[in-house]
Amino acid sequence: MRIFSKEEIEKYISVPDLIEDIEKGFLRYSSGTVVVPPVGHMSLEAKRADLHIKYCHIPSEKFFVVKIASYFPENVVHGKSSVQGGVLLFSQSTGELVALFQDEGYMSHVRTAVAGACVAKYLAPKHVEAIGIIGSGTQARMQLEYLQYVLDCKKVYLWARKYENAMALAQDKALKNYQIEVVQSVEEIPACANFIVTTTSSKSALLQAKDIRPGTHITAMGSDSPGKQELDPEILKRASLVVADSLSQCLHCGELSHWVTENDHLPETVKELGAIFKNPELIPSSSNRITVADLTGVAVQDLVIACTIYERAS
Amino acid sequence: MRIFSKEEIEKYISVPDLIEDIEKGFLRYSSGTVVVPPVGHMSLEAKRADLHIKYCHIPSEKFFVVKIASYFPENVVHGKSSVQGGVLLFSQSTGELVALFQDEGYMSHVRTAVAGACVAKYLAPKHVEAIGIIGSGTQARMQLEYLQYVLDCKKVYLWARKYENAMALAQDKALKNYQIEVVQSVEEIPACANFIVTTTSSKSALLQAKDIRPGTHITAMGSDSPGKQELDPEILKRASLVVADSLSQCLHCGELSHWVTENDHLPETVKELGAIFKNPELIPSSSNRITVADLTGVAVQDLVIACTIYERAS
Repeated sequence: MRIFSKEEIEKYISVPDLIEDIEKGFLRYSSGTVVVPPVGHMSLEAKRADLHIKYCHIPSEKFFVVKIASYFPENVVHGKSSVQGGVLLFSQSTGELVALFQDEGYMSHVRTAVAGACVAKYLAPKHVEAIGIIGSGTQARMQLEYLQYVLDCKKVYLWARKYENAMALAQDKALKNYQIEVVQSVEEIPACANFIVTTTSSKSALLQAKDIRPGTHITAMGSDSPGKQELDPEILKRASLVVADSLSQCLHCGELSHWVTENDHLPETVKELGAIFKNPELIPSSSNRITVADLTGVAVQDLVIACTIYERAS
Repeated sequence: MRIFSKEEIEKYISVPDLIEDIEKGFLRYSSGTVVVPPVGHMSLEAKRADLHIKYCHIPSEKFFVVKIASYFPENVVHGKSSVQGGVLLFSQSTGELVALFQDEGYMSHVRTAVAGACVAKYLAPKHVEAIGIIGSGTQARMQLEYLQYVLDCKKVYLWARKYENAMALAQDKALKNYQIEVVQSVEEIPACANFIVTTTSSKSALLQAKDIRPGTHITAMGSDSPGKQELDPEILKRASLVVADSLSQCLHCGELSHWVTENDHLPETVKELGAIFKNPELIPSSSNRITVADLTGVAVQDLVIACTIYERAS
């Protein structure tokens, strides 16, 4: 059994390779060849903490993965990562543990940011005027870092609940290729940008349907448990295409969960990410279209990233 | 983070202490102070393998536990343990991983055997004529090893599907204090023994109600997933007391699951293990009573054993 520290994991990350690999992972997920049991969950209320367990396997592959990810918000006060846990990779022939990744949530951040880049590759408007980022955490920064691999646009509008956090992110050296403007109100984001990424842990809609211009794409990646919400459900209703990383998960805890209460069956405009990757002709070509990607994080992403790092290291 | 090998774990096991600690664990579980989410499960069909994830926490305690246990039956052909996985202990203050136990299923065997001993301590007939063991695997051996801490009886009748396996177990040096007789048919077990333990992975009843004599206790510990069964449901119906380690789990995948289909609500004769430990006066005193314990394995046992080993080692 090999143990990987966060520093070692960083050495083996290649974003362009991961964009390809995770795209293939979603494709296999949506074609039904990945076995993904329901996500396990436990609340640790004394610390307002949460634990999620995601696991899956692809029958023809060498390994299966179990990811234990906890969120302890008070950790930041003590200078520790608020994300804890680990990713475990097991042999599919014998069940033996082959690798433990003590990643402090880094691999989850990477695979989420990569999913955002995969989405941008397929769904970004032909001409991205500006990128709009909502949120100022790790994922906000990593989205911008990884979007460079698939988008040319360098103009960014940024809004966060705390202005000082947005200012700090705007000055982050990792984003020096961008020209970042911090805005005072969230409404300015859809007014200025036609490619928007929401990366918050909000529990109520931040973007309103009335503010979304035709020709806009929105990737919502903050919602990963019931009750979280970043988009007015009306936006999904108005969209020509709503793409879910996992329909079952998004209906349970994604933006879709806030919309479907009105619908008996899923509208034709809702597709799964892997289906879009397989048949890009499903993407409406009109320049006036609104598209939305609802990302909750699927275990196949964890499997792909763990396998990729392990195989590069071996 | 500290890693424990199976050999190190063995050094820190004290059966008498664990009998006390796990008894307290069940008590807390049944009084509702343990948070135990549903067991996670994944089948890996290519290898006829199974994965279970059990996890829990007690809000007032220091640690929480996640146990990943897989069963790869073909491993034995290659001289490897068929049980793989690991037990992870995390800080409840920060979520940090404090210990990984690479136990090859040993801790699960221990905590299961300890639960059997806890049950025997409370539910064995006053005079145990003979112990009856059904099965010849690790748990059959460990049951006999651990029962020595709570029962005086040294006479054992043993039956297993494969006669040669039963003979091999009967000659195991670890059981040299017992006088073990291997029998040819399973019906001989209830005829000769009034304290019976079933430890198989059977999918149909091995013990029939007509063969059970008044005054018998049966601990069924083989059934841990839907479809498994060791007892004729009629035995549970006839019993004065049926004790479940976890009512919710036993109704899902224990012996109780095969009985309750007939019942709208749980009969008065069904109790939880922790309730019995708290109020032993619930145990019928008649020497003619039949009692049954239905053990599926509860995450609180994994929490107790992991905490005990970690604290002894620290």
